Amino acid sequence: MATTGKQLFTTLEADGTLTVALEDVSFPDPTGNQVLVKMEAAPINPSDLAILVGAADMENATYSPGKFVATVPEPYNAGSKARHGLKLPAGNEGAGTVIATGDSDAAKALMGQRVSCVPGNAYSQYCTADAGMCLPLGDHSTEEGASSFVNPMTALGFAENAKMDGQDAILHTVGASNLGQMLTRICQEDGLGLVNIVRKDDQVELLKKIGATHVVNSSQDDFMAQLTAAIDDTGAFYGFDPIGGGTSVDTAFKAMERVAVSRMSEYSRYGSNQPKRMFIYGRLDTGATTLSPSYGFGWTLSGWLLFPFLQSAGAETVARMRKRVRDNLTTTFASHYKKRVNLEEMLTKEAVSDYRTMKTGEKYLVTPWS
Amino acid sequence: MATTGKQLFTTLEADGTLTVALEDVSFPDPTGNQVLVKMEAAPINPSDLAILVGAADMENATYSPGKFVATVPEPYNAGSKARHGLKLPAGNEGAGTVIATGDSDAAKALMGQRVSCVPGNAYSQYCTADAGMCLPLGDHSTEEGASSFVNPMTALGFAENAKMDGQDAILHTVGASNLGQMLTRICQEDGLGLVNIVRKDDQVELLKKIGATHVVNSSQDDFMAQLTAAIDDTGAFYGFDPIGGGTSVDTAFKAMERVAVSRMSEYSRYGSNQPKRMFIYGRLDTGATTLSPSYGFGWTLSGWLLFPFLQSAGAETVARMRKRVRDNLTTTFASHYKKRVNLEEMLTKEAVSDYRTMKTGEKYLVTPWS
Repeated sequence: MATTGKQLFTTLEADGTLTVALEDVSFPDPTGNQVLVKMEAAPINPSDLAILVGAADMENATYSPGKFVATVPEPYNAGSKARHGLKLPAGNEGAGTVIATGDSDAAKALMGQRVSCVPGNAYSQYCTADAGMCLPLGDHSTEEGASSFVNPMTALGFAENAKMDGQDAILHTVGASNLGQMLTRICQEDGLGLVNIVRKDDQVELLKKIGATHVVNSSQDDFMAQLTAAIDDTGAFYGFDPIGGGTSVDTAFKAMERVAVSRMSEYSRYGSNQPKRMFIYGRLDTGATTLSPSYGFGWTLSGWLLFPFLQSAGAETVARMRKRVRDNLTTTFASHYKKRVNLEEMLTKEAVSDYRTMKTGEKYLVTPWS
Repeated sequence: MATTGKQLFTTLEADGTLTVALEDVSFPDPTGNQVLVKMEAAPINPSDLAILVGAADMENATYSPGKFVATVPEPYNAGSKARHGLKLPAGNEGAGTVIATGDSDAAKALMGQRVSCVPGNAYSQYCTADAGMCLPLGDHSTEEGASSFVNPMTALGFAENAKMDGQDAILHTVGASNLGQMLTRICQEDGLGLVNIVRKDDQVELLKKIGATHVVNSSQDDFMAQLTAAIDDTGAFYGFDPIGGGTSVDTAFKAMERVAVSRMSEYSRYGSNQPKRMFIYGRLDTGATTLSPSYGFGWTLSGWLLFPFLQSAGAETVARMRKRVRDNLTTTFASHYKKRVNLEEMLTKEAVSDYRTMKTGEKYLVTPWS
C-alpha cells in the first residue's frame, strides 16, 4: 500500500539543458529501520542551490506550473559532466510527521512524532528516512525543526573541529549569515574567540546585538587594519569561509600573517612559522580561488564538508552535537525565513530569482502542503 | 685574532632599490659549539634566489665589480616590506674546511675536516656554523658535499612526510629537477610510487634512464589523460609542487579527482571523499595560485618548508635522514652543476641573467676562492 505524492527532480543533460520539475512518486512502505515522513517544511540552503539552479541562466528560462527549463552555460555545464543525464532529487533536510515505520524498535518509537531528517529529497510531500538520522522534535513545530541539521551541525562542527585542533579562536568570513549567527552564539557559550567579517554596517549591529565582540566590516577603508587588530586580539589563525571563489581566503591569510610577522623578532624570507589554517565550506562565489604568495609557507587550506567531518568525529561526538541542537532549537540554533513557498511556488521565476541570490537573512522555506 | 674575508650582502630599500654587494667582514674566533669554516663551494638554489634577486629588473641593473644595484618593481617591493632597510646575508648551504673551533668536544672533533653546513651566509669566504648542523664529509670533496642539505633533505622529507601520512605514492610536479631526480631514486629505494610531471621529451628520457616508471609530459596533447592514468596506477593522491603560482596544483587536484570520481559508484554533487593533498614548497612562479572549484571539498593544500618539517619530525628522524644523505652523497643525492663562479663572477650580468632563469639541470656553484 504505497503512498503517492509530489517530489521535485533536477536533471542536467549533456547539452546544458536543466529541467527541474515535480513528478508524482510512489513511496513504498518503510521496512526495517526506515520511517515514512510526511514532509511539512524544508529550507532552501546554499548547499541545495548548486543542484537546483547552479549557474543556470534563470532569467531566460521557461517556466510552467511545477516546472522550469533553463540552460547551464559553459564552462559550468562541462564542469557538471558527472551528473549529465541523471535525474536527481533535491533538498538536504527538512521536518515532518512520521506516518509509517519499519519493524525496528527505533523506527516504531518514532510513529506519529514530528521529526527532522536529512533525506536528500526533502523537496517532496513524503520522504523515506533512516530512523537513526531522525531527530524527534518533541514540542517543537516542524518549521522550528526544518533547519536543525545543515546549519546547526556545520556551525557546531566548526567549534568542535577548532577544539580538536587545539584552537581557542575562529575567524568566519560571512559572519552575519544564519550559520554565522549560530556560530556567534556557540562561540560565546563555549568561550571561543570569534572574528566575524561582514559587508554592511547593519550586519555589524546585528551581530553586536547578539553579543559578538569582534565584527569587522569589509566595506570600510580600514578593513585590513581592523581585521589584523581583531586577529591579534583573539589569536584567530584558524577560519572558515563559505565564499570559496575570489580573495576571501587570501585576505584572511594576509591578515593572519601580518599579525604573526608583527610578533617576530627577526626577519625571515620564508614568512612566519605561525600555522595559519582556513577551510572552504561553500561556494557562494563559483569562481576560482586566488592565493597570493604573500604569507610564506606556514598555511594550510582545505575544503570542509559536514558529512566527512561527522564521520571523522565519531558517533559519540555526533550524538552529543545533535542533543545540543535539539535542546537549543529555538535559541542558539534558531533559523529565520523570509518567505514560505509550496513546491509549485518554488519553481516560479519570482521565487527562483529571489532565493538564488542567497542574500543574508533571506532564506526560503518550502512547505509542500501549503 | 679575527679572520677577515669577503661576504655577500643583499639590501632592499623602501623605494625598491636592491643592492647586492661584497663586503670585507671580520669573523670572530668561534666559541662553544661553533666552528669557523673556510667556504669552498655553495650552490645557488631556487630558495636562495628570492633574496638574491627576487623580482628585480636585472636587465636594467647597474653592475660594477663585486656589486649590482637593481630595482624591484611593485607590487613585489611592497610585498617585501618586512625586509626594507635590512642588510641580509645569503646562501643557505655550502661546504668547506673547518679552520678553527670553539671549546666543545663536538666542535673540536671537526677541526681540519671537510664539512657541509647550513649557515645562511654561505656566499662568503668564511662562515661561522654550529657543530651540530655540520655534516663531516669524510673522503668526499667539498664540491660533492656543497648541496648535501637543502635538496637531499627536502626530497627525503617528502618521502618521510608521505610515509608519516600513510601514503605509498607521491606526485611531483617538476620531476626532472635536481631534487626531482633525487626523489625518483629515493622512491625506488623505499618502494614508494611516484608520478613525475615534466615539460619536455628529453626530461622523460632522463627520468626513465634513472628508473622512473611514471613520467608524464605536460606539453603533450593527452597530458591530462596520461596524468590521470598515472595517478590511477600509483594511487598518488599526495603531491609536492615547487612552482606555486598558476595552475600547477590545480591540474594535479583535477587529475586526482577524475581518478577518484571514476571509482565512485554514485554521483555526488560534492565531489569525491577521496582525500587529495598537495604541498607548495617553492615559488618558481611568483604569481598567484589559482584553484578552480572542480574537485569538490576533499582536498587540502599547504605550504611546505624544510625546517618546520624537520622540527616536527624530531631529532631521531633527522639524524637518520642526514646519515642516509652522507652515505649516498655521490649516488642517490648527487648534484650536478652547469658552471662555477666566484663571489665577483656571481654578481655579473652574464651570470645573474643565466642562473635566475632556474632552468632544469643548470645549477650554479659558487666557489669563493677560485
